[in-house]
Amino acid sequence: MYCNEDATYAPTAQTAVRRLPERAHYDRATVHAILDEALVCHVGFVHDGRPVVIPTTFVRDGETLFVHGSPASRMLRTLSREIDACVTVTLLDGLVLARSTVHHSMNYRSVVVLGRARRIDDLGTRDAALRALVEHVVPGRTAQARAATEKELRGTLVLAVDLEHVSAKVRTGGPLDEEADLSLPVWAGEIPLRMVRGEPVPDPLVHNSRS
Amino acid sequence: MYCNEDATYAPTAQTAVRRLPERAHYDRATVHAILDEALVCHVGFVHDGRPVVIPTTFVRDGETLFVHGSPASRMLRTLSREIDACVTVTLLDGLVLARSTVHHSMNYRSVVVLGRARRIDDLGTRDAALRALVEHVVPGRTAQARAATEKELRGTLVLAVDLEHVSAKVRTGGPLDEEADLSLPVWAGEIPLRMVRGEPVPDPLVHNSRS
Repeated sequence: MYCNEDATYAPTAQTAVRRLPERAHYDRATVHAILDEALVCHVGFVHDGRPVVIPTTFVRDGETLFVHGSPASRMLRTLSREIDACVTVTLLDGLVLARSTVHHSMNYRSVVVLGRARRIDDLGTRDAALRALVEHVVPGRTAQARAATEKELRGTLVLAVDLEHVSAKVRTGGPLDEEADLSLPVWAGEIPLRMVRGEPVPDPLVHNSRS
Repeated sequence: MYCNEDATYAPTAQTAVRRLPERAHYDRATVHAILDEALVCHVGFVHDGRPVVIPTTFVRDGETLFVHGSPASRMLRTLSREIDACVTVTLLDGLVLARSTVHHSMNYRSVVVLGRARRIDDLGTRDAALRALVEHVVPGRTAQARAATEKELRGTLVLAVDLEHVSAKVRTGGPLDEEADLSLPVWAGEIPLRMVRGEPVPDPLVHNSRS
């Protein structure tokens, strides 16, 4: 998997972050780290002239994002017509408590990818994308689980979006209070947030497990 | 805040969940619980003919969602023209590990709201929405933080989207494996996920805190 982490995505009229540009990042290392930590993206597209936003799992492989699902999925069927899509990924890192109501904020890392999805017809690429999707969520898992059969691969729609028109936006740190508010007797700071994995719950149908 | 939790949103051609309809929910209690637990929504809209999806914080008050921000925000400026929007909220509850690669899944609760945003011009309603936004994230906080001034309220854009065209989708439980795979010696089940709040980090500028 080739990628030059020093490189940056060139901001365009569409991807340039205009609001609070000091929070904008276009370097691959920042973008890749956000995409690799997130488990879900929100895919936006236009259907019958109206915006639709659907959450789905995804994986980055090099400079490509993959999503997958049933050929019956409206989102995937619509996207596979190579229409414009917007894939947004958000990690929420903390709540920012300011001394005044209006300056409350959140710390986050987000990526917005603009592009057109293309359907992956090659079964080998489809298989690799499915494996990558599972490995992204549980590393090492595809060495244990049964691989997809050809029939299963034929029955799965896999779409790819290239990382070309990409921007990241990151907020870190504490509140940005008004100078006059700093002396107020109000606690201010950040409450960090993080996603944790709990104790695994075995499927009741597990009757032959060796792990 | 009036709401009849027994009532349901009427599915329409736009909001009816077609794919895996057994996961669909239209009752207010389910929809409200998801909206009230989530801290971030993804707002989709069409800008220059293309879909854009932006994450932002929000709050539900009765049958209305509120979002806010700077009047300089492209998203808010665009949405305040009363164009079609899609507000999607997703809570990720678990990773579902199946015995086969293709049946891996995720447990989640999501809500999709379709509608047009309207700008809140009344400063009292704007103030109430700002307070609700902060209370949603840190209950009790507005009793401590300085309230917004009239100037601050005038400088904040608040938009509302009514909960009318709404659907929820929920997946729970373990993997849905093929019958033939049940005897495979592969662990299967769910790894629960949850968002936790860490130890608060005080702002270095706190020099007068009493809490």
